[in-house]
Amino acid sequence: MGDTQDDEVYDAVSVIATKRDGHRLGDGQIDWVVDAYTRGEVADEQMSSLAMAILLRGMDRAEVARWTSAMIASGERMDFSGLRRDGELLATVDKHSTGGVGDKITLPLAPLVASYGVAVPQLSGRGLGHTGGTLDKLESIPGWRADLDNAEIHRLLESVGAVVCAAGAGLAPADKKLYALRDVTGTVESIPLIASSIMSKKIAEGTGALVLDVKVGSGAFMKTEEDARELARTMVALGSDSGVTTTALLTSMSAPLGRAAGNALEVAESLDVLAGGGPDDIVQLTVALAAEMLAAAGIDDVDPAEHLRNGRAMDVWRSMIAGQGGDPDAPLPVAAHTEVVRADRAGVVESVDAMRVGVAAWRLGAGRARQGEAVQAEAGVETLVRIGDEVSAGQPLFTLHTATPQRFGAGIAALREAVTIGSSATAPGPLIIDRITVDS
Amino acid sequence: MGDTQDDEVYDAVSVIATKRDGHRLGDGQIDWVVDAYTRGEVADEQMSSLAMAILLRGMDRAEVARWTSAMIASGERMDFSGLRRDGELLATVDKHSTGGVGDKITLPLAPLVASYGVAVPQLSGRGLGHTGGTLDKLESIPGWRADLDNAEIHRLLESVGAVVCAAGAGLAPADKKLYALRDVTGTVESIPLIASSIMSKKIAEGTGALVLDVKVGSGAFMKTEEDARELARTMVALGSDSGVTTTALLTSMSAPLGRAAGNALEVAESLDVLAGGGPDDIVQLTVALAAEMLAAAGIDDVDPAEHLRNGRAMDVWRSMIAGQGGDPDAPLPVAAHTEVVRADRAGVVESVDAMRVGVAAWRLGAGRARQGEAVQAEAGVETLVRIGDEVSAGQPLFTLHTATPQRFGAGIAALREAVTIGSSATAPGPLIIDRITVDS
Repeated sequence: MGDTQDDEVYDAVSVIATKRDGHRLGDGQIDWVVDAYTRGEVADEQMSSLAMAILLRGMDRAEVARWTSAMIASGERMDFSGLRRDGELLATVDKHSTGGVGDKITLPLAPLVASYGVAVPQLSGRGLGHTGGTLDKLESIPGWRADLDNAEIHRLLESVGAVVCAAGAGLAPADKKLYALRDVTGTVESIPLIASSIMSKKIAEGTGALVLDVKVGSGAFMKTEEDARELARTMVALGSDSGVTTTALLTSMSAPLGRAAGNALEVAESLDVLAGGGPDDIVQLTVALAAEMLAAAGIDDVDPAEHLRNGRAMDVWRSMIAGQGGDPDAPLPVAAHTEVVRADRAGVVESVDAMRVGVAAWRLGAGRARQGEAVQAEAGVETLVRIGDEVSAGQPLFTLHTATPQRFGAGIAALREAVTIGSSATAPGPLIIDRITVDS
Repeated sequence: MGDTQDDEVYDAVSVIATKRDGHRLGDGQIDWVVDAYTRGEVADEQMSSLAMAILLRGMDRAEVARWTSAMIASGERMDFSGLRRDGELLATVDKHSTGGVGDKITLPLAPLVASYGVAVPQLSGRGLGHTGGTLDKLESIPGWRADLDNAEIHRLLESVGAVVCAAGAGLAPADKKLYALRDVTGTVESIPLIASSIMSKKIAEGTGALVLDVKVGSGAFMKTEEDARELARTMVALGSDSGVTTTALLTSMSAPLGRAAGNALEVAESLDVLAGGGPDDIVQLTVALAAEMLAAAGIDDVDPAEHLRNGRAMDVWRSMIAGQGGDPDAPLPVAAHTEVVRADRAGVVESVDAMRVGVAAWRLGAGRARQGEAVQAEAGVETLVRIGDEVSAGQPLFTLHTATPQRFGAGIAALREAVTIGSSATAPGPLIIDRITVDS
């Protein structure tokens, strides 16, 4: 009878019905439906119905792994296994964050890790909604460009060691199409679909090791520790099963990271960190993620904070920016208009709502409502207080920046009640909540 | 502030998320999403995702009622409340069957009920897949036409009393669009969506009373009595809440109804019933549904079997067919080719699989795989044995009819194992399982 697997005829309705009725999707069903959707044979209205069934019925570990493989197989794969410097093979390590307000960690982290002789191919995205995009931030540096071809990426990794650039359209096109569909059909909030979306791109990018920063809290996509832990475990398993050394840190996103939210503002704050200063939380998270990445590359006898203090990370930053056409000495754009939001009474700062700060920065022009929109380099919000600070009535809480002052109204409205002032603050929980490995 | 209800701004993703997360849809959300989908503002991929969420999360009675009202409001409504004969107002009663193999009951039923002075506006559909369509069956009568305008329908109801015709495209267009979408997205099997689809059309048709024939069994859409009962209760509640006197019979569809499956074959069998003969099960179901319909119109002191015996129902049939251009005396089309499927051993008939018989008739040319395809008037299957019959090896079980003999292979393949022959048969359960009213 030959190989019946290959002879099987699939159709969208029966694949949807399998998941709808609470059964496992077979390998053949998954391979077929992802491929047929990429080719346009399975229609958007069929895939969105399947996505909702997956969201409500779930997928087990083997199904998520197969779904991820099918998305990888929909496009090309990159390969960084042959990178060399001075004749020696270079280890590659990548980092992915699930996204949060003020999360500019990639900017100091990539050159810091590269300063220890590890290659960091950081293929990144643009922002949508209240979370910023790494490429949007770097584009506030005059001359810097996100689009590199494969030869440039290889050359820069071998010479500079760190590259932050746009992922090519050829990587996991099934994911690209599915992600856009999920965004408009209420099917984003599925851990199997989130995990396979992230990991299909990261595995296709060909990194040797990967460190995940899974955010949890009011400003993050995962609101509960339980969901964040489940997402982290799923992704760590997917990476490990594909031969990518993968670990995850569960980190808090209940208040904005650092002071700055907005493109050029976040670059400036990152420069402070690379110069050995900067907000404590940014430094702590950068060093912790660097230690994870270096350990994944086999380097576990260094304190990454050292290269922030001695300027080695800053040296790599300058080469990295220059290597992609940017001028590391050019002044960053500064907003022509600023406004200040002040405390309406005295007391202790009990909470700072990261989501509201992110929305305010977006409304001021730092973010986009839909793909392809331009963003302002100079727009954003500086958060001037932290949980536990004592404030007096009239003390500044936020500085708002924008090139278009008619946006102040929307920005100020978003910040209403973003800071709670009371009589005493509970100490915030730890920034780094847990570490998830394939054995945990 | 005015009426905040009307000022509310809805969007598809938040409506989908409400149901996805297990909450009730608000009246405003339902009205908006059904209307916006009909207008094309909500896309197919959004509605299919919502349909899957409804299928898996359910809707309560108030939500189904509102959803049904919104579908009715998407189009025009008919009104039969002013029909008169000899100066007296005519009561109107309609019947709907959820569909089964060999279900030709509408053909003898409509003229039988009309023969007692009740108007029967039977707006019907065409067949798809293994179940036949009433209009396809009647179109095997030379000259008969399904498309009537409103004035013709009114005139025929006032003169003849019974009309079987195509529902206009203006009735519940939201349902028409949603039904086609559900068919390709695995979202057909939802009791709230099935109930609202059927009832939106029936309520929009403007009947005063409605009797539902809800089929249960292997040849029906509802495989379990529990599901069929839930569907019946939901529809009876929807009708009653809209002022339409509605009752339902739960009837068995584990074996084909009567002997004939196929268009002209079913008309011929219906003529046998109208002439006072015909298979027992067809007669029993026709009389039971007629009694329900007459009771709904206030007539509960008659035995409807009488007008089958004395030819009064046949008289109305002849007027009904002639009123729509048909020739009641013209011979029906007869298939040029027949084949016989025989028993491969002796024994007792333990089961006859209605689904396989329906599929065989379809494959022989009686049905269509997609909307708009032509069907053969003469194709079909006659089932020659019933559960409990003793058969000898080689005895005919089925006669297959078609105009295109190359279809015999597919028809015979579909009938393989359609009859189980064993040593003893369990007596089949009752044809009429239960009666569901608004109080039950």
